[in-house]
This record gives sequence, C-alpha cells and structure tokens, in this order.
Amino acid sequence: MTIFYNAFHSPIGAHSSFTLGCRGRNGGLGLELGGPADENIYIGLETKKGGQFEALPFYAGTDDEAERYDHANQSRKQDQILAPYAGKKIKREFSLGTDGWQAGDLEFKIYSLAEGVPEPGKGSASELKKLLCPTVIAELTIDNTKCKRDRRAFFGFTASGSTDALNIDQVNRQISGLAKGQATGIYCDDPSVIPAKHMSVEPILKETHSFNYQQHLGSTGLLLCPVAAGTKKTFRFAICFYRGGIVTTGMPCSYLYHRYYNSLADVAKVAFASFSWLKGRAHVADRFLEKKKVSSDQQWMMAHAIRSYFGSTQLLEHKKKPVWVVNEGEYRMINTFDLTVDQIFFEMEMNPWTVKNELDLFTQRYSYTDKLHFPGEESVHPGGLSFTHDMGVCNHFTAPGLSSYERAGLDGCFSHMTHEQLVNWVLCAAVYAKGSGDKKWLKSNLPVFKKCLRSLLNRDHPKGKERNGIMGLDSSRTEKGAEITTYDSLDTSLGQARNNVYIALKGWASYLAMEEIFGDFKLKKESEVASDQAKLAASTIASHLSSEGYIPAVMGENCDSKIIPAIEGLIFPYVLGQKKALQDRGPYGELIRALKVHFKTVLKEGTCLYPDGGWKLSSTADNSWLSKIYLCQFVARKILGFDSPATRSKADKAHKNWLLNQENLRFAWSDQMSSGVAKGSKYYPRGVTSILWMKE
Amino acid sequence: MTIFYNAFHSPIGAHSSFTLGCRGRNGGLGLELGGPADENIYIGLETKKGGQFEALPFYAGTDDEAERYDHANQSRKQDQILAPYAGKKIKREFSLGTDGWQAGDLEFKIYSLAEGVPEPGKGSASELKKLLCPTVIAELTIDNTKCKRDRRAFFGFTASGSTDALNIDQVNRQISGLAKGQATGIYCDDPSVIPAKHMSVEPILKETHSFNYQQHLGSTGLLLCPVAAGTKKTFRFAICFYRGGIVTTGMPCSYLYHRYYNSLADVAKVAFASFSWLKGRAHVADRFLEKKKVSSDQQWMMAHAIRSYFGSTQLLEHKKKPVWVVNEGEYRMINTFDLTVDQIFFEMEMNPWTVKNELDLFTQRYSYTDKLHFPGEESVHPGGLSFTHDMGVCNHFTAPGLSSYERAGLDGCFSHMTHEQLVNWVLCAAVYAKGSGDKKWLKSNLPVFKKCLRSLLNRDHPKGKERNGIMGLDSSRTEKGAEITTYDSLDTSLGQARNNVYIALKGWASYLAMEEIFGDFKLKKESEVASDQAKLAASTIASHLSSEGYIPAVMGENCDSKIIPAIEGLIFPYVLGQKKALQDRGPYGELIRALKVHFKTVLKEGTCLYPDGGWKLSSTADNSWLSKIYLCQFVARKILGFDSPATRSKADKAHKNWLLNQENLRFAWSDQMSSGVAKGSKYYPRGVTSILWMKE
Repeated sequence: MTIFYNAFHSPIGAHSSFTLGCRGRNGGLGLELGGPADENIYIGLETKKGGQFEALPFYAGTDDEAERYDHANQSRKQDQILAPYAGKKIKREFSLGTDGWQAGDLEFKIYSLAEGVPEPGKGSASELKKLLCPTVIAELTIDNTKCKRDRRAFFGFTASGSTDALNIDQVNRQISGLAKGQATGIYCDDPSVIPAKHMSVEPILKETHSFNYQQHLGSTGLLLCPVAAGTKKTFRFAICFYRGGIVTTGMPCSYLYHRYYNSLADVAKVAFASFSWLKGRAHVADRFLEKKKVSSDQQWMMAHAIRSYFGSTQLLEHKKKPVWVVNEGEYRMINTFDLTVDQIFFEMEMNPWTVKNELDLFTQRYSYTDKLHFPGEESVHPGGLSFTHDMGVCNHFTAPGLSSYERAGLDGCFSHMTHEQLVNWVLCAAVYAKGSGDKKWLKSNLPVFKKCLRSLLNRDHPKGKERNGIMGLDSSRTEKGAEITTYDSLDTSLGQARNNVYIALKGWASYLAMEEIFGDFKLKKESEVASDQAKLAASTIASHLSSEGYIPAVMGENCDSKIIPAIEGLIFPYVLGQKKALQDRGPYGELIRALKVHFKTVLKEGTCLYPDGGWKLSSTADNSWLSKIYLCQFVARKILGFDSPATRSKADKAHKNWLLNQENLRFAWSDQMSSGVAKGSKYYPRGVTSILWMKE
Repeated sequence: MTIFYNAFHSPIGAHSSFTLGCRGRNGGLGLELGGPADENIYIGLETKKGGQFEALPFYAGTDDEAERYDHANQSRKQDQILAPYAGKKIKREFSLGTDGWQAGDLEFKIYSLAEGVPEPGKGSASELKKLLCPTVIAELTIDNTKCKRDRRAFFGFTASGSTDALNIDQVNRQISGLAKGQATGIYCDDPSVIPAKHMSVEPILKETHSFNYQQHLGSTGLLLCPVAAGTKKTFRFAICFYRGGIVTTGMPCSYLYHRYYNSLADVAKVAFASFSWLKGRAHVADRFLEKKKVSSDQQWMMAHAIRSYFGSTQLLEHKKKPVWVVNEGEYRMINTFDLTVDQIFFEMEMNPWTVKNELDLFTQRYSYTDKLHFPGEESVHPGGLSFTHDMGVCNHFTAPGLSSYERAGLDGCFSHMTHEQLVNWVLCAAVYAKGSGDKKWLKSNLPVFKKCLRSLLNRDHPKGKERNGIMGLDSSRTEKGAEITTYDSLDTSLGQARNNVYIALKGWASYLAMEEIFGDFKLKKESEVASDQAKLAASTIASHLSSEGYIPAVMGENCDSKIIPAIEGLIFPYVLGQKKALQDRGPYGELIRALKVHFKTVLKEGTCLYPDGGWKLSSTADNSWLSKIYLCQFVARKILGFDSPATRSKADKAHKNWLLNQENLRFAWSDQMSSGVAKGSKYYPRGVTSILWMKE
C-alpha cells in the first residue's frame, strides 16, 4: 500500500491546511479551500557529492511515470540538479499528531494539534491564544555527521492562490519567512537560514549571487538551510495562515484568532514562542488513539478523518460572540446539519460547547415553519418548525431561514431535508444536554422541543388517529416535490425521506429522547405523546420486516431495497443511556429483534457487502458513505452484537484500501464512494463518526 | 476590422477593471489582476416569441467557431434556450468615457471616468469620494415598444477568483446585487429586478420556482430585469470593486477609498447616488479626445490606452499619506520607473501631484548608491546615486533600495537599469517642476539633483578629461554584468545601456535640464558642469553619424543596428520649453541635424518600417513597443518636422491593426509587439504617451 496519500495538517478553527503526502503538485498551503492548494512543495537536501539535490516528491513531475521518463531521457536529466528521492527510499510515519518523512539523511516531521477548544471567555485567554494559533509547525533534521562537506537543505514552495506576491518577510533577527501576500507563509527561526526567491526552484539552488536571493519576481521561494560538515542539525518551521478583518458575508464575522493576531508575522512569532508546547500537544494527540481494541487500520482511518475534520473547522466571532463552523469539505457548506448530527459524538468528546453553539444558531437564525402535503395531493396541512440544511456556503451566511442547498420543485438531490433536519435538532439537543449536563440550556429550550414534537406529529398525519409514528407528509417548501435525506445522491432507497426506515428510526429515537426530557421536566402530557409516538414508530418499522428477513428501505411503497442505515438511529438511545430501549426483551424488543434479523440478512456479499468486504449502504446503489459505515459498524458491533471480521477487521481493511485508491490519494479523507472511488464528498470532515470506536 | 476587442472599464485608482469586449469567457470583474478575470458575462434579452434568449457573446462557447458548430448540431441546440446574438447584428460605439453595445432591442452602455485626481487633502472631500468610488456604471436599455409580450432581460456573470461565495446582496429596498465575497459585485437600483443564482445560466432562465432564485450554491448569477409589453425601459447598474484593510506587504497600505467606503454595499449606494454625475463625467471624457488634428484611428488608440492606464492605477495610503501607484500591466510591478518617465506627459496633464508623489518615494525609499566598473575590468570606481527599476510587485513593496526586477550577474533581461533610472529621475523631476511651477519642491530637491549630476559624471568616466558626455561604466550592482535599458527583451541595439544612443540622448537632455535648474538657483558651477556635459554628449552623439547617414545604436562598439528611439530623448527639451536646443541652427544644431539625417535614413521599409507601415524600433530586432512608437511619432512630426503618412496616418492604421490582431484582442491595449503580435507587456498602461498627440 502506498505511503503517498495527502493528509490534512491543520490548525484548529482556522479553515486551513498544509496538505501534504500525495506525489506531485497536489499539496500546499490552503486557506479556506475545498481541496488541496495545488502548490509545489520543496523539501530537500544536497547530495553528499554536492551540486545535485534530492527532494521529497511533492512537486510537479515527480510521479512514477515522470521518474521513469527522466531516467530514459539522460540529456534532460543532465540539465537538472534536482531529482525526487526514489519512492523506495522514502519512509513515512503517520499518526494523529505527527506525520514524519525520512529519506537518506533527511527527516521532515509535521506536528498538528488534535484536541478540544475551550469555550472562548470561559478558560484562560493565553491558552486559547496558543491553541488557536493558525499555524502548523514542522522540523527538518539533516544528519550530516557522515559527510565531510557542508550541505544545503531547503523547505519552500511555489505559491498559488491570491494575486498578491510571494514575498520575503523578515520578522526580526531570528525569524524570516516566505509569505504569499498576507495569507499564507512558511517561517523559520534560525538566523542562518536564507529566504530566497525566483521563478522556479532550480535557479535558486544554482544561484551564485546572494544579491539575487531577495529578488521579488516569481512565485517560488525556498528557505535555504546550511548544515556544516560532520554535524546534525534540526531547523524549526512554522507554516502559518492568516485572514484578518471581516471574512464572511451575510452575517459578518471575523476569525476569533484575530483577537490575538494581526498579521502572519504575529502568528509566526507566537508559533516559535510556543514551539515546544505545540510539539508536546502533538505527541499527546498521537497517544490519544492508542487503545487496545482499536486496530492499526482503525487508528489510521481515525487519524486521517480527525485531521480532515480539524482542517474544516472555523472558529469565527460575530458581535464578539463565538460562532463555531465546520465547513463541508469540498462543498464548503457551513454547518451542514446532517453532518453536525454525525460529528456530534466527536464534538461532545472534544468541545461540547460547539454543539450548543451550532444548535443555538440553527434555532435563532436557521429555523422556519412550513406547511405540509401528502404526495401527489394539492391540499395543504399544518406543518411546523424545522431547520435548514446548512447555514450558507463558502464564507457566506445565507439569509435567516434559508440554506444554500435546498431548492423547491424537486424530489432528488438539492430538495429539502426538512424532516431529517428536524429530527437532527432534537437528537443533537438531547445528546448535548445529556452529555454536558447543561440543564439550564435544556430548560430554556423546552419551548423549541415542544414545537419540534408538534412538528413531528403533523409530519406523521394531520389526524391523530391515522398516525403510525413515521413521516407521511412532505414539506410545502418542496412545492409539490418530495423531501430527501442526507444520502442525497443515492437512489430512492436512501434518497427518499417519506416512509424511509432510516429516517423512521431516527424519528423513533427523537420521540424516545423527548419522552425522557419532557418527563424530567414534569411535562407529562408531552412526554406521553412522545412515548406513544415512539411505540407507534417502533411497531410500524417492525411490522415491515419481510418474510425474507429485511425491512424495505422505503416502507409500504413497493421498494425492496435493503439498506444498512436502517440500524443507524440506534446510536442515539445508546448515547443517551436509554439501555432498556435497546434490549431484545425490552419495551422495544420487537423493533430491536427485527433490526437484528434485518442486519443479518443484508450484510452479505451481493446485498450490502462489496466483494472486498467493504460495506455497501444500499443493495440497489453503488454509493457508500464511509462516515455512515463507521457509525453503523459501531452500532452493529456494540449495540446489536455483530462483532466479526465482516463488521470489523475485514471491513476496515477494505475501507482503508478505498482511501488508498490511486484516485483518492489527493483528497485526504473522503466520504462518498462508488466501488471504493470517491465520487463526491471529498476532502471531508464527517469521518469523525469513527470516534465511537473508542467506546468499544 | 472586428469590434470584439477587450477594453478596460475602470474606476480611478482602484486597480480594477470590468474588462469586456472580446468574445468568449475573456472578460469580467477583475480586482488586482494582470489580465482579464476570465468570467462569463451575460447581457441578454428574451426573444420576442419568448422562451428563448439572446445575449452578447461574452461567455464561453460564443466564438465564431462554436457558433458554426452549434448550427450543425441541431440536437444540442434544441436543449439550449440561450444563444449569442449573431456577430453581424451587433454594433459597438467605443470612446474614452463610454462603450456602447447594441443588438436587436437591447442596448448596453458602460460609463467610465477618465480625468485627473485632485491631491487628497487639497480639494473637496466629497468630490474626491465620488471620483474615487470604486465602481463602473452601466445602463441596459430594452426597447419593448414593438412587442406585445412582457420580456425579461438580464445582466450577470459567473464569478471566478477568490474562494468566497457569490452571494445575493440586498442592500436596501431599492438596491440589490450579486457579490463575489466582499470583493466584486454587480448591483441594480430597480426594485423590480430579481437577483438569481444557480450553477449555470440556463437553469436560472428556465427556473419556475421563485424560491430557487435565492439558492446559494453555484457561481453564476443574473439580475433578471422584467420589461412590460409595449414599453421601453432602462436599468441602471453599478459594477463595484472593493478591498478593505491593509492590502500591501513590505510597506503596509490601504486603498485611499477605504476612507469613504467600508463595503461593496457602501460603494453601490454611492454609485447610484452619484449616477448622473458619473455619467456626466463619462460624457466629458468622451469629448476630451475630440480635436481636429487627432484622427479617429488616433482617438481610438488613445481611448484604449488611457483606459488601460486607469485600470492599472492604485491610489493607496500609508500612514495617512497618499501613495500613487501605477501597476505594470500584466507584470504588476509597482511604479516601474521607466514607465513613469513615459507616462509623465499624461500625469502632468491629469494630476501633476502624482509625479511628485512617485518621485519622492523613489528618493526616500527606492534610491541607492553604487560603485562602477568598466566592462571586463576588475577595478571599481566611485559611483553615485541612482534609483530602483520599480518599487515592488503584486502589492508587495520591496525593501528600501531594492526593486523586484533587478538581478546581479547579468547583461540581459533582469539586469540593472541604474543609468536609465538615474536620468529618468532627473527628467521626471525637471518636467514636474516646470509643469507644476512647484519651486518649493524643486528647491528642496536641489541636493538630490546635485547627487544626480555627480553620479552621471562618474558614470561617464572617473577622470574629468576623459569624459565624452555619455555612459561608459556599469554599476557594481550588476556584479561584473552590464546594465540594460527599458527595452529589456530587445537585442543589444536597445538592450545595452552603455554607449547606447537612446540612453545618451536622454543623458544629454538630463544635463540640459540640470543646466537650467542649477542656473535658476544661481548654482553657477553645477550649471556649467551640466552645460559642458551636454555639449560633450551632443558632439559625441553627432560624431557617430556614419557616412551611410545613421548613428549606430551602440556607439563605438561595432554595432550597426539602426534604432528609432535615437530621437526619443528630444521630447524632454521640448516639454521643458528649451526650444533653442532643438533648432537646426541652435547651440545643438549639429546634434539635431544628425538626428534628422538619422531618422530619415532609418524610417524605411526593411530598416525601421514593417511592410504594413508599422514602426520597427530597431533594424535588427522584431520587437517593437507601441508606447515608444507613439512618443517617437510625436518627436518625428512635431520636433523634427517629419509629418507624412509614414509618420502619421499609415503608421496609425498599421498600429491600430496590430491591436486588433486576433491574438491581441483579449489583452486590451498591449505594448510589446513582434510583427504586430503582443508577446509581452500585455494589458499595459504605458500607451498614454499618445497624450502628446493632443499638443499637435
């Protein structure tokens, strides 16, 4: 398996990444991007003989194809003084906090944080300042002990992106760097290091006039690092990101780190002042995933996914109040709610306040009240509260009550997810309240829960007697279309919301959660209504278990697709500590038993397993979401008790292999896979559902 | 001749342009770009029958090739509801202040300012606010009087550039727009207009659900403009540009307009409030070039060149003091001095304070003192003051005393232009002082003039007796290389500075200017030294007139290239009012007569004329600069008296044809031409040398 895959190396909450690992011009310093920055990255060392240089293969023309071509073309090779290290000579050690490369006498190690952010204003400001420093630190170690010549190493890049110049930024006597405008830069705190610029890399290495290092045309820069004969030396770097002022439209926000930093140079200074602290935190992150029951394949996927998550985070502030944003990978939608509900397990582990922060903004700005219609019918029925799919896209906050995604008149991709986002609010709110113990927040949100309950009831059936506990009407916002689910590009089996077993189970979980919450606050009537609905939902779902042993994806609509996410919603009673509800012989035993039968039936090759052992979410579609697979793996193993190679080691191996497919290497962690190839949802934050594996 | 050429439509001092006119995806809203923004621009109208739309051909796939292809492919055409107007149906009226398009019932007119900027702090702030408003206004007029159906027109674009979303910006009840992040946007002040967004243009036109107009995925937006049956209506637009905060590195500056504007919406509001004023100013600009002796070909080139100049201007402020920047076209170098010296005639006409502003920054930050060497010799001689080639590049101000361009160890492109920039300072300073009458400034700069004189003497020869009035030594900054001239990519005939007749004549003009300035301030000794050097220079140059009737480009170095710019430097005594110096029988009669003989000899086809009558600056190189041709045309006609079709109408026609060459259409006005094709210096500001034609 290749070691040359891209990974995020990201500060927390800065929506930026020093992406590196995939051969060629596929990485770089990305600020607010939905993919790699596509910059050449040069990390290299003079050969022992001198005059020639070798570098890690992270620039254009270093793929294996080109390497072979170069060997054949000797005349071309003679002009070149820079060659990539042969792939076989390169080693990589990849973990959550550190990512290390070694080739010949060169070692390059990148350190990232992976930890929770304390709520701004609640903890120590100096700690927050360090934690939010928009930097990733790295070390370049050159072992020149066995060489009798002075040698030069280097770290640099060909900057892309903004139309501002790459410039040499001399911060103070120690620190100098190469900065692309005011946005991204690589700094070093060793005064012996020389920042140098030119139109491409080789002329810098060949340069004989030191005057020319400071030349300012061209977008390629190197930090030249001299190493004396017979010595070993480590150079420290800070890869910095910065965007000042207002950065969003619609609802004007700035980065919260802007409180502490006024420029890239500010960031670099703090990065070096906190260097050992940052390095220490990266080592803590490395140890975070070490757990007996978590295999190395699992750890690898978790490290990869968590890095992708942090690269998508953006801690903003609006009118001096924090706004936590997770950008939706390549799509960069803001706080997509159907991602929030999956990322909640990770955020509750890391920083529960961010969940509250997201929920409050959904309630205050991104909620709406609709009406409803039965499929194919003209007449309109009372609707209720729900929440938008997202809060905007690419740094634009949409107007109140509107997402960037949802459109009218559709029944497929880009239609509304009204029902799903409604249950997502209830479930997230319940999980937050339970996990944080924040009774005050819960109490103040009881009116919202009440509206959610009413809304869910109306979406079941206008007449109480006709209700079956699951969704039967579509939002009027679809304008005679139909609602969809988060599985928007899958076929009807997971695409249609109405009567869908996936949505139905999340509905059941929502009722269960509300039954308890209302009960705790002595709201007996509401608690009973919720309880009744939970029972209705459970029996409706269980009643659809077919004689072949599965529950059809869309119940009662002549659909015989089989889907794994039928079991997905079980995660919520589990996390909410509602153990009885999950028991075979408990109050919802019939449902649980039906789901067990269902799962056993579908997890078979040709149904919901690919030939390689990877999970296929729907029997009728070649479109599988890794984040959802991770979640359902946990449900299958820990809640339903299906712990076997098919649910664990064999599946994990297949899923790791998917991520290492040649076509996926560029996008770090991706979610949506067709036969193991990422066709959408690339460079994506949602894989942190895998945090649940730590609970096994 | 095609009407489909790009032109700049730019605010003043905002380094931005709504570039439009070339077919295809070749125009758009460019902020701080060295070329067109490459955005699709949609300006169109529903057909009379309805359901289909026609647009001006400024989006991808509208070149003639594609049009033919589409006609063949009927099945593809059936799906499409938008087609470009046939080229033959489109008319254009292009002038300095207005640029109008007409096709069918649609008329689209863009209004630009073209006038001087008062010195900030000196004039009325409210006037300055309007003048600097970073906007270009436009009107779309739809004549629906002969149609019985309501029709929809539109103006919009597919935004490119930053990673921020295209968003709908509802400024107030009247004004709404489509904005790309906080940077560029198109606004309309008609409340009946609907801003709409989607992933491409046709779905917006086909949309039946008004809810979907506000959808925020996708980068294509249209302002939909309803026109009632039987009516004629004009919609007003403001195309706005904005960059707040600090925008430069090295020397942190913000845009001066940032004093008055805090957002794109602010810009839009003022644009509409000042709409009639702005329109009036554009009409004044239209009339500015109307002069009997200026032909329509000349007016066309001037309008084109002046627009390109304004699009390259950037009025910044640093520590509350204005900083005037002209960016170097596609290269975006800041205040390239060898452009300043050519643009000075225009700036003196428009806003002389900007010349002082540039000169002061050169003196204070971008000057240096070097040493000198003879070609091929090791020993070093005293040098003196000179100035850098430029002040930086792409919004980065280089460190004091350093340009972004000049490198050591070279004798070709990217070498130093020490001697040329030295005479450029002297000549610009003299022209500024003379034209503005700013005695105070002149007096305070006498020490600089003195240093310049000393520096020029040292560059002639270390020993007084050996001097011949022209450059004999190269700067030590070249580190054993040789200096070059502004004609950096031409061959030795104009590339080598030492002994070059072009530089020599500018040196002569510098001595002449200093003779008078020192004389005026009773600095008798300095005045005499300058006078002696002027005489020496003149006789040296004249002495090189060969028996074949030309002065070789590089004198005394076995070069027999013939160059037109031998006469270029005559412009300075002309502008400085030193009429006697230019007379055949005056104190420099021998020089003037020699240059006349020279010019007559070289302006022949096969020598310095292309077959089409276009001017070829050097007999030995196919590399001609239009800005310099314009300048030399004026010198030839007005100073040397060669007024003929070869120096006027025939040449103008050829040069206009060059700019309309298929390969040049995209770059608006370009400077550097090889056989009429722009090979460098595209999208360039320097063509304002043509302002001199107004003095004929």
